[in-house]
Amino acid sequence: MTAAHLSVASLHDPALAARVQHTLDRKTKPQGSLGRLETLALQLALIQGREQPQLVSPQLVVFAADHGIAARGVSAYPSDVTWQMVENFCAGGAAVSVLARQHGLAVTVVDCGARHDFAPRPGLVIAKTGAGSADSSQGPAMSGATCEAAMEHGAALVSGLPGNALLLGEMGIGNTSAAAVLMARLSGEPLQACVGRGTGLDDAGLARKLAVLREALAANAAVTEPLDVLAALGGLEIATMTGAVLQAARQRRVIVVDGFITTAAVAVAAALAPAVLERCVFAHCSAESGHARWLARLGAEPLLNLGMRLGEGSGAALAWPLLESACRVLKEMASFDSAGVSERGS
Amino acid sequence: MTAAHLSVASLHDPALAARVQHTLDRKTKPQGSLGRLETLALQLALIQGREQPQLVSPQLVVFAADHGIAARGVSAYPSDVTWQMVENFCAGGAAVSVLARQHGLAVTVVDCGARHDFAPRPGLVIAKTGAGSADSSQGPAMSGATCEAAMEHGAALVSGLPGNALLLGEMGIGNTSAAAVLMARLSGEPLQACVGRGTGLDDAGLARKLAVLREALAANAAVTEPLDVLAALGGLEIATMTGAVLQAARQRRVIVVDGFITTAAVAVAAALAPAVLERCVFAHCSAESGHARWLARLGAEPLLNLGMRLGEGSGAALAWPLLESACRVLKEMASFDSAGVSERGS
Repeated sequence: MTAAHLSVASLHDPALAARVQHTLDRKTKPQGSLGRLETLALQLALIQGREQPQLVSPQLVVFAADHGIAARGVSAYPSDVTWQMVENFCAGGAAVSVLARQHGLAVTVVDCGARHDFAPRPGLVIAKTGAGSADSSQGPAMSGATCEAAMEHGAALVSGLPGNALLLGEMGIGNTSAAAVLMARLSGEPLQACVGRGTGLDDAGLARKLAVLREALAANAAVTEPLDVLAALGGLEIATMTGAVLQAARQRRVIVVDGFITTAAVAVAAALAPAVLERCVFAHCSAESGHARWLARLGAEPLLNLGMRLGEGSGAALAWPLLESACRVLKEMASFDSAGVSERGS
Repeated sequence: MTAAHLSVASLHDPALAARVQHTLDRKTKPQGSLGRLETLALQLALIQGREQPQLVSPQLVVFAADHGIAARGVSAYPSDVTWQMVENFCAGGAAVSVLARQHGLAVTVVDCGARHDFAPRPGLVIAKTGAGSADSSQGPAMSGATCEAAMEHGAALVSGLPGNALLLGEMGIGNTSAAAVLMARLSGEPLQACVGRGTGLDDAGLARKLAVLREALAANAAVTEPLDVLAALGGLEIATMTGAVLQAARQRRVIVVDGFITTAAVAVAAALAPAVLERCVFAHCSAESGHARWLARLGAEPLLNLGMRLGEGSGAALAWPLLESACRVLKEMASFDSAGVSERGS
């Protein structure tokens, strides 16, 4: 990625913000009474740089890859589940498939580096930069060149997608481990606060995961620059997603962030270009234990908190109608003047 | 209401619950990883008494009336806003109109006793039992006969609606005051914990509201039976809604509860027939200060928490797609067997 690719401009536009806030305040409701829906409407307007934001052809992308560290027993599921779930996404049977269908979201599945050769088909993009990442408990998960290639794949993919909204999803057995060490290194939080049960580890499994992740941090101890951290501790799908997020941000697409792993990609992108966060709508707070704290660190206010911990983009898909609602409130609600409704007294 | 009208059977069916839980656990996801969406799916199955619940022709009803106590200055808005907002609902310009349109919800507005004569039109039901309730700070808001007539209107209305889901909405300047005193009397919470800023009172307004509501509790001090409490401290729209809730519960409709005022109607209905609560999906936790505590008292787990405090049914409409999602997950998601996905290891 060149420096230009890493640069994302701020959306700072106080005049537009004031006009949108005025419109919201003139709608037939007590000021502020639609709560988070109003701040969401304002954010969408600022992302799109206009008073009446409109969501067009939303694209949900599921980034999939395998992780070398999975061989260390950090997940309750075997690595084969990565490719099996890719097949399930393509067949329309996964949770994210069902929810995307409900809300009219186009789904693209990207093989960023699963340990499997997929038969080509519509909706599946093969953009491998390796057959899984290396085991980060033994050294870097990716070389710098591999990581950069993955990011470029992600940026190119987004450039080719229609519409003005990108919903992030992912699949990769072992990727809560990668996200946890990324969080620890990027945020400075103690590792214990970053590590959770993932797909459902028991206490012994959680202790093992924590020990393995301590090794991963130690094996990559000298690494501190965001791109180097991503290569050393991330994964192929997280690197691809980071490139996708940066490209989406440059194009002023609305970025809908799902759970813990997609937050990792956004956190890397934001470390490179802080204005990325202005484009991000955080769909939900995951039950994965580190997520709430990471969201707070990023100043993110998630829309939903439903105890979900599935990933795939399921939370992003579930939250999507709220973004639509925010746009509709701005566009369709009557004002006090147009509806002839009395205003408040003293 | 006869005793039969007040009787609602429990949905207790452990065999069905076990079958639905098994289906959820065999879906291609870690067990429990869809969080609240899974418990919602289970609840909808139990309400409908079948493994594949289906939502048909959902009906959002906005119950509107005026309140005598509004003359005491307990609201930031004048009573005329009640009828003006009814016009706004009918014209499709209110928040709930916009959100209901987005989600394909049929809207019926019921004039339960606004101080206004409406021109008849489709979607507006005139079911007045008075021109506003009396001022409860001076004595009962309604006579027992008026309250019962309102409840019967509500029950008859629901009986005439198609579909199997009722979404509750309301409009009535002064009705957070009625709901607050109902909460205080029914729950035993101190009045201060029940009273909030409603449509946006300042500190002086809040203090005035609290003082007036102390008078209302004192003026109706001897009243403790739920139906008597409803008549003494409620309002025409809350009484009509209570009858509607009881009828919907008897018909095993899914009842989607909105904010503070609709919770008041549900709380009265549940005091009469506790199994009502099994049919209720609590859409959101309102920013109105007493709502969170009342929900906790009722054992309710709201779906959304977006700082909204508008009423109208806006929260119920916003949460609606989550109920659809819960049904779709049960129906459309693949199982480990059907998708050929490996299960967890040890």
